[in-house]
Amino acid sequence: MRNLLLRLCFDGKNYHGWQIQKNATSVQGVFQDSLRSVTGENCEIKACSRTDAGVHAREFCVNVFLNHRISCGGLKMALNRVLPRDIVVFDCAQVPFDFHARYSCVAKEYVYKILNTPVRSPFLEGYVLHYWCEMDLAAIQKSASFFVGTHDFSSFCTLDSRQKGDFRRTIKSFLVTRDEDIVTITVKADGFLYNMIRIMVGTLLKISQKRLKPSEISAILEAKNRALAGPTVRPCGLYLNRVFYE
Amino acid sequence: MRNLLLRLCFDGKNYHGWQIQKNATSVQGVFQDSLRSVTGENCEIKACSRTDAGVHAREFCVNVFLNHRISCGGLKMALNRVLPRDIVVFDCAQVPFDFHARYSCVAKEYVYKILNTPVRSPFLEGYVLHYWCEMDLAAIQKSASFFVGTHDFSSFCTLDSRQKGDFRRTIKSFLVTRDEDIVTITVKADGFLYNMIRIMVGTLLKISQKRLKPSEISAILEAKNRALAGPTVRPCGLYLNRVFYE
Repeated sequence: MRNLLLRLCFDGKNYHGWQIQKNATSVQGVFQDSLRSVTGENCEIKACSRTDAGVHAREFCVNVFLNHRISCGGLKMALNRVLPRDIVVFDCAQVPFDFHARYSCVAKEYVYKILNTPVRSPFLEGYVLHYWCEMDLAAIQKSASFFVGTHDFSSFCTLDSRQKGDFRRTIKSFLVTRDEDIVTITVKADGFLYNMIRIMVGTLLKISQKRLKPSEISAILEAKNRALAGPTVRPCGLYLNRVFYE
Repeated sequence: MRNLLLRLCFDGKNYHGWQIQKNATSVQGVFQDSLRSVTGENCEIKACSRTDAGVHAREFCVNVFLNHRISCGGLKMALNRVLPRDIVVFDCAQVPFDFHARYSCVAKEYVYKILNTPVRSPFLEGYVLHYWCEMDLAAIQKSASFFVGTHDFSSFCTLDSRQKGDFRRTIKSFLVTRDEDIVTITVKADGFLYNMIRIMVGTLLKISQKRLKPSEISAILEAKNRALAGPTVRPCGLYLNRVFYE
């Protein structure tokens, strides 16, 4: 038996997130069926995280314990032949037995993409948030710097049964860049709370609209009150971009 | 009555091309219904060209004679509200009465996009040709130069009832560039024959595979024999990029 780390890339447009759900198509469900059809084994799939409906992944890591003796390259090719065209395996490698896609992960990087033009783009539908108001990049960049470091992010978290315990997370970097019409927000942290990035982005847009001041971010963090932060923006602009292991 | 020039952008993935057809959804059909629902008028729509099923347009021009007194900006906004999200009007302007989207056009530019990686990308599915063999850009660029100028392009044309008369066209520029994994082929000409770009790209790929020499392009042009050129590549990588008027 080997422990295999598979790196996937998927378009989340047509899925109700990663995790298997009743009465909804999930990436995990489709991937599990493909893995079974290739190997004949019913492996338990350990994933680096959950993603919400409509969220994409440029890198999503899972590990599985496999008895089948297929080579890593062979498994990658075989899976890509049976997977639908919106899910791809771009890497497969053997890892130590104690490797766990979620618990071994030391950091993750998400990207949020905003198309900032008066008219939407047919090609980017479902892949960006279309935002037509002028964006104050300087104010957004200034605000973003207040998120960096270790904070209790309760104000930037949708409360549900999944979120328990410690709300402290460490944001290692928070970059806001503009390339022509596309504004890209890149956030790297040791972990993320439920909807954390989507609420941070919603708050930054509120600052861009002058409905909040950059310096208010600190007070919102301290208040630990979800109601003070901005709205949760749509999932379509969100991508899990990189997953870091030691 | 005014003559209006509308510039559209559409994702051709879900359409059987521009032109209205029986039993198939066309961009023209959807656009015509939207125009009627906004203006109440049954305008005849003159288009800059036809596009095939699955072909995209970053700029596609049409003109219509309209009695309705709605402003150009108002018509653009109203259409974008009723059009499906894969068709967008990004400009609307009044033009002289003798302007015709097809006959007034002096040149068009098409772009063909190739994703040159071992593994396909879920995000570019339907928007590029996925080609996994190594590409010989130098040979492709050298070959492309033989297409520039005025030639009879019979060898690079699918013969059908639509294509009559003169097969001579003038290619003004033919550029091949690579940006990371994406190879972009940009061709500007006074006009194009049926499938001309898709056959030229198929021929360039045959040269990249060393199954043809760059210098053979001239002989293929002179032979006026479709059988000597390469295959017709898939429509998904093709975009009408710009339409030029005097």
